[in-house]
Amino acid sequence: MLFWLKQYRRSWLAGDLGAGVVVAMMMIPQGMAYALVAGLPPVAGIYASIVPPLLYALFGTSSSQSVGPMAIISLMTASVLSPLAAPGSALYGVLAGQLALLAGLVLLACGVLRIGFLANFFSRPVMSGFTIGSSLLIAFDQLPTLLGGAAPSWHTDINGASAALGLGALALLVLARRYGARLLQRCGLQQASADVGARLAPMLLVAAAIVLVAEFKLDRMGVQVIGQVPAGLPRLNLATSAPHWQQLAKPALLVGFMCFLISMSGAQALAARRGEKLQTNAELVGLGAANLGSFLSGGFPVTGSLSRSAVNFAAGANSQLAGVVAAALLGAALVLPTGWLALLPLPVLAATIIVAVLGMLELSLLRTAWRYDRADALALLATAGGVLLLGVEAGVVVGLLLSLGAMIWRESRPHIAVLGRIAGTEHFRNVERHPAEIRAGVLLLRVDAGLFFGNVQAVNARVEEELAARPGTRDLVLVLSAVNAIDTSALFGLLELNAALAQRGARLHLAEVKGPVMDRLKESALLGCLSGKLFLSTANAWEALADQDK
Amino acid sequence: MLFWLKQYRRSWLAGDLGAGVVVAMMMIPQGMAYALVAGLPPVAGIYASIVPPLLYALFGTSSSQSVGPMAIISLMTASVLSPLAAPGSALYGVLAGQLALLAGLVLLACGVLRIGFLANFFSRPVMSGFTIGSSLLIAFDQLPTLLGGAAPSWHTDINGASAALGLGALALLVLARRYGARLLQRCGLQQASADVGARLAPMLLVAAAIVLVAEFKLDRMGVQVIGQVPAGLPRLNLATSAPHWQQLAKPALLVGFMCFLISMSGAQALAARRGEKLQTNAELVGLGAANLGSFLSGGFPVTGSLSRSAVNFAAGANSQLAGVVAAALLGAALVLPTGWLALLPLPVLAATIIVAVLGMLELSLLRTAWRYDRADALALLATAGGVLLLGVEAGVVVGLLLSLGAMIWRESRPHIAVLGRIAGTEHFRNVERHPAEIRAGVLLLRVDAGLFFGNVQAVNARVEEELAARPGTRDLVLVLSAVNAIDTSALFGLLELNAALAQRGARLHLAEVKGPVMDRLKESALLGCLSGKLFLSTANAWEALADQDK
Repeated sequence: MLFWLKQYRRSWLAGDLGAGVVVAMMMIPQGMAYALVAGLPPVAGIYASIVPPLLYALFGTSSSQSVGPMAIISLMTASVLSPLAAPGSALYGVLAGQLALLAGLVLLACGVLRIGFLANFFSRPVMSGFTIGSSLLIAFDQLPTLLGGAAPSWHTDINGASAALGLGALALLVLARRYGARLLQRCGLQQASADVGARLAPMLLVAAAIVLVAEFKLDRMGVQVIGQVPAGLPRLNLATSAPHWQQLAKPALLVGFMCFLISMSGAQALAARRGEKLQTNAELVGLGAANLGSFLSGGFPVTGSLSRSAVNFAAGANSQLAGVVAAALLGAALVLPTGWLALLPLPVLAATIIVAVLGMLELSLLRTAWRYDRADALALLATAGGVLLLGVEAGVVVGLLLSLGAMIWRESRPHIAVLGRIAGTEHFRNVERHPAEIRAGVLLLRVDAGLFFGNVQAVNARVEEELAARPGTRDLVLVLSAVNAIDTSALFGLLELNAALAQRGARLHLAEVKGPVMDRLKESALLGCLSGKLFLSTANAWEALADQDK
Repeated sequence: MLFWLKQYRRSWLAGDLGAGVVVAMMMIPQGMAYALVAGLPPVAGIYASIVPPLLYALFGTSSSQSVGPMAIISLMTASVLSPLAAPGSALYGVLAGQLALLAGLVLLACGVLRIGFLANFFSRPVMSGFTIGSSLLIAFDQLPTLLGGAAPSWHTDINGASAALGLGALALLVLARRYGARLLQRCGLQQASADVGARLAPMLLVAAAIVLVAEFKLDRMGVQVIGQVPAGLPRLNLATSAPHWQQLAKPALLVGFMCFLISMSGAQALAARRGEKLQTNAELVGLGAANLGSFLSGGFPVTGSLSRSAVNFAAGANSQLAGVVAAALLGAALVLPTGWLALLPLPVLAATIIVAVLGMLELSLLRTAWRYDRADALALLATAGGVLLLGVEAGVVVGLLLSLGAMIWRESRPHIAVLGRIAGTEHFRNVERHPAEIRAGVLLLRVDAGLFFGNVQAVNARVEEELAARPGTRDLVLVLSAVNAIDTSALFGLLELNAALAQRGARLHLAEVKGPVMDRLKESALLGCLSGKLFLSTANAWEALADQDK
């Protein structure tokens, strides 16, 4: 707990305060925008940006992680809740909190049970595909709001004033993203400050848009605005009675899983830059607590956002104090009069969402994978397609199945080499790659993987194949130099191999068994009934089996 | 198709005919018993023993596999269907056929898509736990039938005549199992024949029980009998209209998966004894066709049964002709008058089920695993507990999750060794195991696993750890002698490692990169931006990095 406070240095303070201000200014439009993506009133996004980062600061281990609303998690929230309640209804808000509660409990449970390693299993291409699919889905969903008038939907006509405002904002944001930092540098700012300054474009644009709407009464010309934002801090929410716990349970697993994956992938990228070490299970507890906090304070599922955390980092955050400062500022903004926010035009908010999510598109990974490993590229495309065609939840499942399938496929084809001796040496190498001599009647096989249930069939099948190709084999030597473990299934596999060889008059030998593997095997029946011998080295086996010939 | 027919030898004929007769005699009580376990009329078990083995014979590759009703699959069938229809009702029968149809389609699809390798992923301990849990569940379910009168349930009193008949049959079957073969050997039979003869005890007992019931009118004393068995061959069933397709779809995946696992584990054990090679994908097609056949002929989900296949094998089966003969004999039995079967007492059938399933209990694996690998033993117990407490379907899921979790855990902890040079040689070994010299400023790390998304975090974390322990490190050499593949995620991991090292003024070198891995890396950006060098051998790296010091 409070990992950062224990080692806090005074010199960190200025950076933390500055970063806190920047992140708070980024959070106001972003929080409200992602609340809209989740189908909730804008203020919920501010609520979700106050208590969750405070709780994350208590337990989390990343110095620059910014926890709060995040586009993809908001999309998942909307996708889970919209079949259960009408977006904007009171029930919908209650369910959003309960989804955060359940996802938080899932995360806490994983952290307490220390099973964070399970999250290693979304490959990067699959994660990239998921992000691409979700980003496109979110951007596409915002198009009617960008162009339309009141109650935008695909059936309403395009509203001229809205479209002008929305497309204008879009153009300005794209320009700010591309040239903003360079412009600020020319104005004399240093590169780091210029990068951070450019990220405040959405906040400035929102302020300008509010002024525009007020000045030209654009809201009377059909431009939808967010309306009154209730002032005051979030109140304690304990709404745990609802008819939908069961329908929320399974999605909560997926939402919790994705909260963790998204947060970790961002935090790890930043931690690598600082040479900082994250503790996976503490991260799970921190994110779990943040989601419980979101539930308690009228929010919805939250996670660490890479784009926001990167700004936090660039703005000089040295510890979670930056997050605490940002949360305090957002709380203060809610205590001050909020009337000025009411005229914020939705098309501008839609433009900030579109630019933010399209900024997450990472096509370079697809290009790299396409050249480097076509199967990875196809997994990426399949996951993106799954999200776009089947929805974001099904997309997670598609991604998981593809990752697991890839792992199983990989495991079921261990590399197995037939060894021969490099003439005149004691070195043994793969006969397919090196000019090596083999000895009639003796087959040396090296398995380059731990033996376990996933490859035991493959190993035995390969042995059968090699024996069928060399009918005179009397001695099979398994060279276990690369075998770090043999599980119970593989132990039985070896016992069966031993028996099968004995039946055709051949013997099974083991060579180069590693220490820990041997310690285990001593507890088993294998060594007792092994038809052949144990050899310390492959060279020993080679010599001993040659002598027999004489 | 018809793999066995292409190479059929005349000398096989006698064995096949004999085994066919034995299996048919075993099938009559067993088929009826397992139909009862599935909640179906006894004759459905005979139907499921005729067409399915014929279709398996067309496509399957095992010479001795006996396809038909199997206890655990029947238990799963009952567990899937009983919430949807009343056992014994017409709808229940229709749904049983449709479950076989769907499971068959799943199997066929897996075979056609050649994804049989997915079934490598039930470890033996998990499979054993599943079998133990299911066997106990089946045996327990049969107790009321063993002891009770008409319409047995846990609420009816024990019926004296039934209990006497049931417990008597149980005792005789246990004795036959334990001493039958020995007795027959003393009577002059050879061991193999005696073993087979002893397996016919259930058939003899059933015949004797029918005579007893008829002679003493036991059915009037409250002993339940199976009642009229309709004569005639099964009729073509095409009942595909039903309201339950959706509820059947997910369970059909599990049933199909277990059909395949159970069949393969038996077939592989027998194939090993014959030195025969099974084709996984052809097996999937064979089992799929068998289940479609079961649907078409009024049956229910079927699979290969190890106990029956072992008898088939021991009785001399040389090819699938034995299964064809057995099917023909069963067909003939249905064409002949079946009235004599009506008096078969259910308590005796219950006794045959209990003895059969308790014979599947394989506690030796639990004992071995307990000594050899405690985690495997716990996975076994958890799966058995899952079946007993949560039901057979949930048990499959528990088993799958445990197997996958074990694999992920294993993958996320690759073996990584710090290498040192054995003084005076060119050999490099793990410094923890060998007295080896290291060189200040140079860290040699050997990763003993392919680099992929599952272990890339673990590798980078370990590198960070080792660097933190050796602050003066300027050169990190990754020795990739055991790395057979680097996927896209790991490629990015290496790029990040390279950048992170560069930032602290250290260089990343690669040594002993394998040919196929190098071919791939040449397509990537890594070689271009690598801060260090590529070395052919670890010794080269050692020399080159020493020279630098000077």
